[in-house]
This record gives sequence, C-alpha cells and structure tokens, in this order.
Amino acid sequence: MVASSHLLIVGGSDAGISAALRAREVDPACDVTVVVADRYPNYSICGLPFWLGGEIADWHDLAHRKAEDIEAQGIYLLLEHTAQAIDPAGKAVTVVDKAGESQQIPYDSLVIGTGAVPTRPPIKGLEQPGVFFLRTMADGFALRDDLAVRSPASAVVVGGGYIGLEMAEALSRRGIQVTLVEYLPSVLTTLDSPLGTLVGEELNRHGVTITTGVAVEAIDRQGGHLTVTGSGGFHVETDLVLVAAGVRPDANLATAAGVEVGHWGAICVNRVMETSVPHIYAAGDCAETYHRLLQRHVYLPLGSTAHKQGRVAGENAAGGQAVFAGTLGTQVVKVFDLVAARTGLREAEAREAGFEPLTVQVETWDHKAYYPGAHKLRLCVTGDRGSGQLLGAQVVGHRAAEISKRIDAFAVALFNQMAVAALNDADLSYTPPLSTPWDAVQIAAQVWMEKR
Amino acid sequence: MVASSHLLIVGGSDAGISAALRAREVDPACDVTVVVADRYPNYSICGLPFWLGGEIADWHDLAHRKAEDIEAQGIYLLLEHTAQAIDPAGKAVTVVDKAGESQQIPYDSLVIGTGAVPTRPPIKGLEQPGVFFLRTMADGFALRDDLAVRSPASAVVVGGGYIGLEMAEALSRRGIQVTLVEYLPSVLTTLDSPLGTLVGEELNRHGVTITTGVAVEAIDRQGGHLTVTGSGGFHVETDLVLVAAGVRPDANLATAAGVEVGHWGAICVNRVMETSVPHIYAAGDCAETYHRLLQRHVYLPLGSTAHKQGRVAGENAAGGQAVFAGTLGTQVVKVFDLVAARTGLREAEAREAGFEPLTVQVETWDHKAYYPGAHKLRLCVTGDRGSGQLLGAQVVGHRAAEISKRIDAFAVALFNQMAVAALNDADLSYTPPLSTPWDAVQIAAQVWMEKR
Repeated sequence: MVASSHLLIVGGSDAGISAALRAREVDPACDVTVVVADRYPNYSICGLPFWLGGEIADWHDLAHRKAEDIEAQGIYLLLEHTAQAIDPAGKAVTVVDKAGESQQIPYDSLVIGTGAVPTRPPIKGLEQPGVFFLRTMADGFALRDDLAVRSPASAVVVGGGYIGLEMAEALSRRGIQVTLVEYLPSVLTTLDSPLGTLVGEELNRHGVTITTGVAVEAIDRQGGHLTVTGSGGFHVETDLVLVAAGVRPDANLATAAGVEVGHWGAICVNRVMETSVPHIYAAGDCAETYHRLLQRHVYLPLGSTAHKQGRVAGENAAGGQAVFAGTLGTQVVKVFDLVAARTGLREAEAREAGFEPLTVQVETWDHKAYYPGAHKLRLCVTGDRGSGQLLGAQVVGHRAAEISKRIDAFAVALFNQMAVAALNDADLSYTPPLSTPWDAVQIAAQVWMEKR
Repeated sequence: MVASSHLLIVGGSDAGISAALRAREVDPACDVTVVVADRYPNYSICGLPFWLGGEIADWHDLAHRKAEDIEAQGIYLLLEHTAQAIDPAGKAVTVVDKAGESQQIPYDSLVIGTGAVPTRPPIKGLEQPGVFFLRTMADGFALRDDLAVRSPASAVVVGGGYIGLEMAEALSRRGIQVTLVEYLPSVLTTLDSPLGTLVGEELNRHGVTITTGVAVEAIDRQGGHLTVTGSGGFHVETDLVLVAAGVRPDANLATAAGVEVGHWGAICVNRVMETSVPHIYAAGDCAETYHRLLQRHVYLPLGSTAHKQGRVAGENAAGGQAVFAGTLGTQVVKVFDLVAARTGLREAEAREAGFEPLTVQVETWDHKAYYPGAHKLRLCVTGDRGSGQLLGAQVVGHRAAEISKRIDAFAVALFNQMAVAALNDADLSYTPPLSTPWDAVQIAAQVWMEKR
C-alpha cells in the first residue's frame, strides 16, 4: 500500500484553491490542506468594489465557493492560520493560529499562494484614520464600516488603475464626491492614452473629478478632515482617501526559506510552476508569470492568471504534468457604462521585445448601424510589420457592445501566433443586431493591413 | 502603355460589391463594372426582417453603402440590368436593361455573384396572393405593402430557420398572431435539438405558436383568407403566409455558359474562387464554399462568407493572389431576447467526416452570478476524442450575455485547429460584471476534458 501524498497549500485565494481543487481531481487519494490567513477562502476580491458601491447587497455572495463546498471536495481548510516559516529540508511549514498556538505541518509538496499586498507609495500620512487600502475582505469591511459610520461626503482616490477606477465609480454610486488623482498623464495607463482618456471622460460624465500628472505627497488630518497635497500645488480637502497604487508580491515566507525571487520581488517559477527549491511550487499574485509573447517571465498579477497558475501547480504537485501556457496580459475593466480591454503587447512593449510594431487606431460600429442600439467602438491593433504577426489589441466602448469577448477573439488569435491577415480571414459570426459582416475586430485588422 | 484590365461583376449584393471594392484597392487602374438586377446595390438583405418588424424605420438605412459611395470608389454600377448570357470564348456578357435594350460587355475577368433564390417547397398554392417569399428588396416591398394595405391579423411562417424565426418575431412585433410550422422535430435545426428548443420556447413566450414535425402540403384561398394544411391533420386559417424554406443557388447564367456546378447546384470553385471556365470567378450564395474543417466544398450560403469570398475573387480577378481560408459554418441569430450561435461541426457532421466526436452540454453563467444581470448560458462543445481537437461549439442565451463573441472565440480556436485543452489555457478577459475567472467557454472546455 502506497501512502497518500501530502499537499500543503499556503493561501486560500484564487491560486491556492485552484491548486487544491485540481490536485484532488488529478489524484483523489491526495491529502490536501490549505492554510488560509482569514476566514474567507476563495472569495472574489475582484468583487469588493461592486459590493462597496452597493451593486451587490450581501458580501457572502462574493465567495466563488463556500467553505463547505471546498471541504466537500476532500480539502482540509485551516482557517485563520498564518504560515510563519518553511523548512525546506524537513519539508514542513510552521503555522500559527489566532491564539498564537503553533504547529508544524509536514508536506510532500508545497504550493505557495500568498498573493500580493497593496503598494504603499511614498506619501506622508498613510497610516492615519480615514486612509484606506483595498485588498482583503478585512480591508473591505473596514472601508464599509467607515462609510456607514461617518457617511463621508467626499473622497480622494489615489491611483487610476483598475481598482482606483472601480472604486471611483463605487464611491460615486454612494453619492460621494470623488476626486481621482493619477501620477501619470492619463488614467488606465495599461491602455494607449487616447483610449485611457475615454475612460477618464466616462468618469467625468458621472461627476468624478480626474486629476492627472500629479504625485500625491502628503495626507494631513485636522479634525475629521483630511487634506491631500501633491505636486504642482495640488490641494484637496476630503473626508476619505483610498490608496489604489497597485500591488507588490507577498513573498516574505518564500524568500525566508531561500526561494529565489525575481527583480519585481516575485517568486521565480518555471512553466510547471516549480520554484528554485525542490517540492515547492508557487502560483498567483506572489509569483512571476510566463508571458507567451515575450517568452520570458514578468510580474502581471491578475485573478484569471492566478486560477490558471494554481491549476497547473496543483496538477503537478499531485503528480501530473501540466505546463502553464502563459499570459497574454488580457485585462478588462467596466467603468460605469464603458468597458476597456486589452490583450497582448502595446507598441512600446513590442518594440522593446525586438518586434517592429505598427499600431493603428480604428473607430467602427459594434453592429450594423441601422439596427437600434449601435455603439461606436475604439480599437487599437498592434502587429509586426515584418512578419505580419498580431501582437496586441485594445478595445474601448459601451458595456453593451461586447468588448470583452471581442478582446477574447484577439486573445485566442494571439495564443496561436496568428497573423493579422489571418484574423481577417476567420469565420466570425454575423447578424445585424450583434455585428457587421466583417466584425469590428476584422475591420481593425483590415486597416492595419492597409497601413502596413 | 498597358491597357487597364476590365473586370465585370454580375450581381450587386455582398459578394459582387466586395469583389468590386477589393479589385479597386488591389489595382486602382482596374476598370470595374457591376451589373445589378435591381436598384439596390449592396443592400443588407439580412436586415429586411428588422425593417419589416418596425425596428428599423427607413429601408434606405439597410444599404451597407450608398450607390454614390460605391461609384466614388471608381466602380461603374449598371443598375436595373440583367445579365442574360456569358460568352466565355468571346469574353463578353450580354446584358439587357428594363426597356429590353441589350448590349455586350467585354471582360478580361468576370465575377459571378448571382446569389440565391428562395427554395419553393412542394406546397400547392404557393403562387396565390397573400403568399410571400423574402429574399430581395422587391420581396420586402411587396410584403410591406401587403401588411400596410390588408393589416393581416394572423400569419403562418413556413420554416424554422434563421429567416423564419426572425420573421416570426417581426410579424409578432406588428401585433400579428403568428404560427410557425417546421417540418423537422424542432426549430433551428442547425443547432442540437435541446438548444433549438430553447429558441422555440422564446418564441412561445412572445405569443408565437410553434408547430414542428409537420409538412405543409397546400395553401387554399377563399375570399381574403388562406387555409394552410399539412401532414398529421395540420389545418390553420390565416391571412398571410410567409415561406422561408431556405435558398438554392442561382446558377443558371453560369451553367448556360458551361460553368461546372456541384451537386447542390452551386457553382464549383477552387480556393482562389476560380470556376471551371478560365477568367470566370464566382463568389457568394451562388457558389460552393470551402469548409476549413471538412477540407472540402459544401453549400453554406451566408452573408459573412459572401463578403469574404467576394474579397478573394475581386483580389484575384485584379491580378492578386488571395486564397479563401474557408468557412467554419459560424452562424448566429437573435430571436426576441435570445441569441443562438454555432461554429464548426456538430456530433453527426463530425462523425460523418471521420472524426471520433464527443459532445458535452454545459450550463453556466455569463458573468459572476453575484453581479447584477447574470444570465445562464447553454453551451455544447464537440471535440475529437482521439486527438483532443476542438471540432465545434454551440451557445444559446440571453442577448445581453455576449453569445456571439463567445462563439467567435471558439471560431478563432477552430481556425487554428486548437485542442479543447489549449482553449482552456488561453488567457481570456475577466472582470466580474462580464465574465468568470474561467470564462464560460473554458468551463465548457473543462467539462469536455473531464468527460473525454
């Protein structure tokens, strides 16, 4: 009789739970324990802004799966336990509970899925009451309580990335006067500036003040009020500050055990999600991500990627042979009635990677203009002039205009290293209420082909 | 000095105009004439049901392009002219105008884009007043006039394909009591029966009576009323009958000139859209279509395919070297609030083509169920058990659930002969209001992988 293998997973969010579920699928005899720092395994932290904005009534609904459902898969959840140290030689992890009681948990394979923590930009006064970050369920509860108790009339959101934009919308929905401050020249700098600007305009239309090109330097508190000051004489009085300046990998547990990290501070992994230390895998926002187009690892923390990496790590930790196919950096955000999405490389990224990029911008309809409800889309397509290979795409438009699935068509094309011209040849669906005979994706491809 | 080449195109719908536009792009010196039987070049006949249903106010809006816009591209339109005969040896076409005046038009290259005509099923009484077909703008005007003059209270639609379904909706929108009769056991038999049934239920919900498994045999007229009778004692009194029993290629002009046709009666073409006769190309609904998965020609008349074939024919007729990439049979229809789409092969088609197909049916959410407005999708995925290759997909769901672009993700995957497992690895977009961390497309792929 062969003893069942012990798989220990540190982290109960997307990567950790995906790893656990996949391991049990691959090897139903595998013994799986997940160490979860809080009481909320497998919660969709991506959903926090929608709950805080009142679009979702009950935070319990944010759970991808209930704890019982996870346990029903034969997974043992160690809630409110924190992993303190890994002993790679002894193949064990020291875990501490809320009461300070510690135990050693042995493993045959270990998956580190410790996630990320919010970046703390160099701003004076971040530690004061009324200043919030948003990453964990606890962060969400703290912000909710403050909103309920103090009913702030105004807020400053620092950072114009996904969370900053979604929270600007969420706070606006609660009737709060929001000022969003971004250090760079436009919001959503993961898109080309003309497209990011459209997102800023959508926020403006809904009463959000956008200030770009300003570095916030200090937050001062007097009475219940906060004063936010920054470069160029920026000065705003507000009731609440939310700092959404991105995240950095939470790799302390790993590094203390001698696990190698890359220069983003993220855990180095290969394409089977192994770290530099035998029997230790890593997945999700704490780890690097293999980029399918760049053919090297980058740091690109995204929920969808965490699920995929977790699945690979779990399968391999349970004796399987999965390979992470790689990210394309596919991302999408909904801000009020606008959706902005991208996949692949932008012009500068492509040039840096040694391509000879050409990018075109196109405006075209989502469906036949004669049919009610047609919306104009803005698309950017980037391809390699020499080879004709598709390198990336960006699409912005109304939320009813099926933006995100159009980006998915580009993403599947990128996955297959398709030429822009081949995408134009693909047999995409057409009916007047939903598309044009050449879909917007292909009209953009044709413009690229003409300009090449 | 080289004389410019003369390109003659017979047919002013999707294939013909696409060919004309592409020829002028490829060779701006090319002399392009398009013979158009009516006064409506480049009209979107796919839009007729929406105009007849009142969703589009002005029929002029159905034009993909105005005649002036086409002429501005240096294309000569010969409106209300009919091509009567091709002289392949003399490289000329005899064309007759409304007054019966005939002329010979010489060509260096000829593109036949004569389209299709409605199938006339073996039903007695099809020629009577009150019985309509819908294919051309003239058909649309005739039906509109009848609706306006007689204000029919009831209608029978014969045929549960795309046009039949769209017209059942259109007539219902006008307050007409509609009975739809389909010969086969369910409507929309281009989808698997459980999915086609959902479309039938949507029509039912909106007051349309669906009768399946009935062959209509006769239409009798007494006074202003029609009686439709069929197999199994089917008997309905009605004011109007619309026959939408599919189309057959209009290849008479071609066959008279010795151009080879296939056993669907459609013009045989190779992948550069050449017919069996030198210097004569064909494209669109009059021609066969190369199927990328079956690797042989089929008859599959679709507007999106006509555009693509026309583009290839026009490019090659003007001296270019384009190859038609092939259809995947991608199709989509919106019926009231439901969208039904498919791409690739279904189980039986795949088996017939020598694959070892496995099909799974999946029900899953279009986006995170916690976010308002989530809808359940029904998906079918067919793949080859042996190789793991994706062979086809079908999706049905609410019109807000981005069905058609999800089918496009499958279509791009099929274009690249992707494995089902690879589609699961693709980096698709995720945000809670628009998708799930594994998109519905991938959840279906995972179910297929488990069942394999």
